[in-house]
Amino acid sequence: MKRLAIAMVLLSSCCYAQTSDEFQPASTNVWGAQYPRVDSTGRAEFRIKAPSATAVKLNFWSNPKLDMVKGADGFWTATTPPLVPGFHYYNFVIDGVDVNDAGSHAFYGGGRDASGIEIPEQGATYYLPKDVPHGAVREIWYFSKVTGSWRHAMLYLPPGYDMQTKMRYPVLYLQHGGGEDETGWIKQGDANFILDNLIASGTAKPMIIVMAYGYARRAGQVDPDLTGKPFGSPEMMKAMQEMSQAFEDDLTQALIPYIDSNFRTIADRDHRAMAGLSMGGMQTFQVTFNHLDLFSYIGGFSGAGGMMMLRSAEKPDLKTAFNGALADPAAFAKKVHLLWIGVGTEEPAQMHAGIVKLHDAFTEGNVKHVFYESPGTSHEWQTWRRDLKDFAPRLFQ
Amino acid sequence: MKRLAIAMVLLSSCCYAQTSDEFQPASTNVWGAQYPRVDSTGRAEFRIKAPSATAVKLNFWSNPKLDMVKGADGFWTATTPPLVPGFHYYNFVIDGVDVNDAGSHAFYGGGRDASGIEIPEQGATYYLPKDVPHGAVREIWYFSKVTGSWRHAMLYLPPGYDMQTKMRYPVLYLQHGGGEDETGWIKQGDANFILDNLIASGTAKPMIIVMAYGYARRAGQVDPDLTGKPFGSPEMMKAMQEMSQAFEDDLTQALIPYIDSNFRTIADRDHRAMAGLSMGGMQTFQVTFNHLDLFSYIGGFSGAGGMMMLRSAEKPDLKTAFNGALADPAAFAKKVHLLWIGVGTEEPAQMHAGIVKLHDAFTEGNVKHVFYESPGTSHEWQTWRRDLKDFAPRLFQ
Repeated sequence: MKRLAIAMVLLSSCCYAQTSDEFQPASTNVWGAQYPRVDSTGRAEFRIKAPSATAVKLNFWSNPKLDMVKGADGFWTATTPPLVPGFHYYNFVIDGVDVNDAGSHAFYGGGRDASGIEIPEQGATYYLPKDVPHGAVREIWYFSKVTGSWRHAMLYLPPGYDMQTKMRYPVLYLQHGGGEDETGWIKQGDANFILDNLIASGTAKPMIIVMAYGYARRAGQVDPDLTGKPFGSPEMMKAMQEMSQAFEDDLTQALIPYIDSNFRTIADRDHRAMAGLSMGGMQTFQVTFNHLDLFSYIGGFSGAGGMMMLRSAEKPDLKTAFNGALADPAAFAKKVHLLWIGVGTEEPAQMHAGIVKLHDAFTEGNVKHVFYESPGTSHEWQTWRRDLKDFAPRLFQ
Repeated sequence: MKRLAIAMVLLSSCCYAQTSDEFQPASTNVWGAQYPRVDSTGRAEFRIKAPSATAVKLNFWSNPKLDMVKGADGFWTATTPPLVPGFHYYNFVIDGVDVNDAGSHAFYGGGRDASGIEIPEQGATYYLPKDVPHGAVREIWYFSKVTGSWRHAMLYLPPGYDMQTKMRYPVLYLQHGGGEDETGWIKQGDANFILDNLIASGTAKPMIIVMAYGYARRAGQVDPDLTGKPFGSPEMMKAMQEMSQAFEDDLTQALIPYIDSNFRTIADRDHRAMAGLSMGGMQTFQVTFNHLDLFSYIGGFSGAGGMMMLRSAEKPDLKTAFNGALADPAAFAKKVHLLWIGVGTEEPAQMHAGIVKLHDAFTEGNVKHVFYESPGTSHEWQTWRRDLKDFAPRLFQ
C-alpha cells in the first residue's frame, strides 16, 4: 500500500500549506494550490518551477506577454497590475513552448484545455452560487445522423423541473465561441448560477438551456487538404461553409428533435431562443435566420451577423442581408420577439466597430433590437456573463 | 471582426488536416488534434514542438519515462510499444518541467488537470456509448455545513428517471482516487456508459450513482503547518485523520441527506452502497464500517481496509479491525449484503499484496466476500472499469 500512502502524503502536504499576506489562492485553482493567487485590487501572482529555463513569460491571451523573473530556488514569478474582473485564459511560455499552469483547473479555450484565473468583481454576485433553488446541470449524449457520431451537449434544467412533472418549459440554445466547446458556458460562464439567481428573483422565466458542441463534420465527409490555402480562398471558404452547414443541420435536425422528445419543452418557435458568443453569435444568426420557423428570440454576444459579415467591411444592406428577413421591419418585429446584440467597450477596435456597424444598420433600418455595451470589458467571459444577465430576462415574457 | 475571422481560420485549418497511415487520432484528443495517435496494436505516437529544448521525455505515470527524439522541424516525437488497453495519464517533461499535451483533453489526476490517452481494448464495448437508453449525468452543488462551503458532485440518474416519476431508486456512492476528483468516474471511468449498458442488458438494476468530491476541510479549520513533518509523524497523521473525518461527516451529514431529499431514492441501508478506488476504497471502508446503519453494500477497488491499513504490514485482526464488525462473520453476512474487493494483477507488488492479504484474512475468518482480479492491468482505470462492471450487477438484487 506504499503508493497509496505516498498519495495521501502528497495530498496532505499540498493541502495544509500556509498562506501569507493579503493574496489568496484563486477560486479557479485545483485543491490545495497556493498559486496563482489574487488580491482585492485584482492583482494576480503567478509562479512556476523551471530551473533550467532561460526565459519564461506569462501570457494572458488578450494582452502583451509579461516577463517572469527567476529566483534562486528555480521558481519564476510574476505579479500583474490589477486585472479586469472576470475569467481570463492564460498560459506560461517556457523557452518558446506554451504550457499550462498545474495550479489551475483547465478550461477549454483556444482549441485546448487551457489554464484560467477568476478575478472577483467587487460587488458582483449575480454569477455566484447562492442559497436559492438550483437548476440541474446535465450532460447528454445524442446520436446524430448528420455527423454519424455520438455528440455531447450540456443542459440546464430550471429549479423545480424534477418535481413539477407536468410543467413544460421554453428553451434557449446557447453557443460557445471559436476554440471553446460546450462546457464553456457552465465552467467559464457560470450560466447555471446566473439563471438560478435570475429565476429566484423573478427576473427571468424558468427555462431550459441547451449548450451544443459547435463543431460538426458531416458523416462520411472527406476532409479537404487546405495546406497552403489562404483565408478567403475558395477552398477555405467552401470548407468553412460545409462545417457551419453541418452544425446547422445537426442542431436543427438532430439536437432540437432530441431535446423536444426527451425533455418537457414547449416545442414551438415562440418558446425557442438562440444566442451565442463570438463564433457562436455568428452561428446563431446563420441558424435562426435560416429557420425563423424554429426560433423567435435571437442573441449575438460579441459576434453576430452570420458568415456573410466576415466578407465585408460595409454596413449590411438590410434589403438583402439575412435572407431579406429585415427588409420589412414591421413584419420582422411581429415575427421575432427579440433581436439582441452586445459588445464590450474594450473589445479590439475592428470587433467593436463590427457590432456597432450592425447596430447602426438596424437603427437606420428601423429594425427593433436591443444593443448592449459591457463597460470596461473586452472579448472575454465577463462581457458574456453580463450579456446573458441582460438577455435572459427578456426571453419568453 | 478580424479576430473572429482568424479564429475561424485556425478552426478550419486545424480540422481539415490529412491523416496518414494506420495511426488514428486518440479518442481523448481535442477537436482536430492529429496527435497523439494510436494504432490497432495499441502503440501510440506523440509529438510536441519545442525547438529550443535540450531534452524532452514522455512520461506515462506508471512507467519509466521515454526519451523523445528531436526532428529538424523542432518537433519532438516518440512512439510507444503496444500499451495496456484503457486510459492512461501522461505528460511531457521539457527540460525538467512537467507540461500537458495541448492535443489531449485534460483529466483530473495527480492533483492537476493532466493529459490522458485512451487505448481501445479490442472487443471490449461495455464502456462505450451504444444505442441503448442513456441515463442522465448531472452536476450538483450543495451547501455543506460541515465544510462551510458549496461543494460539487456528479450524479448518474438511470434511464427512465425523468419519465417514471413515481419510481424510487437505490443509490451507489462511488469515489475517485487520491489526486483525482469527482469528475473521474465519468470522464476517465465512463461509469455512465458502463451502467447504461448493464441496465439495458438487464444485468444491473437501475440505480442512482453519486460521485462526491473526496477532499474536505472542516468549516473554520486552521490548516496546520506541516512543513518538514515526515509521513507517520503525529502532526501529519492528525491532519490526515481530520481531513478524512471531515469527508466522512460531509458525506453522511450533508450529501446523503441532500440526495435523499432532492432525488427519488429509496433512503434506507438496504438500498445504499458505497465503493471507491484506491484512496476512495479506503474512504469507503472507513465510512461504511463507521455507518453500517447507512450502508449494506461495500466495495474496495485497488484500495480497501480504511486508514488503519496504512499503518501495518500485518494481516488485520478481524476480531478488532473494522470496529469489530467482522468478529462474528455470520452476523456480518446477514447485515452486509456484499463485501467486494478487487485489484489488478499487474499492480505494484506491495499494493497487490495488500489487497490479497485482506482477501486472505477475510477467507480465513470466514467472512463472505467477493475477490476479483483484473487480468493484465495495473493501478489504472481499466482495472476500475472492470471492477465496476463486476460490482454493479451484484447490487440491490
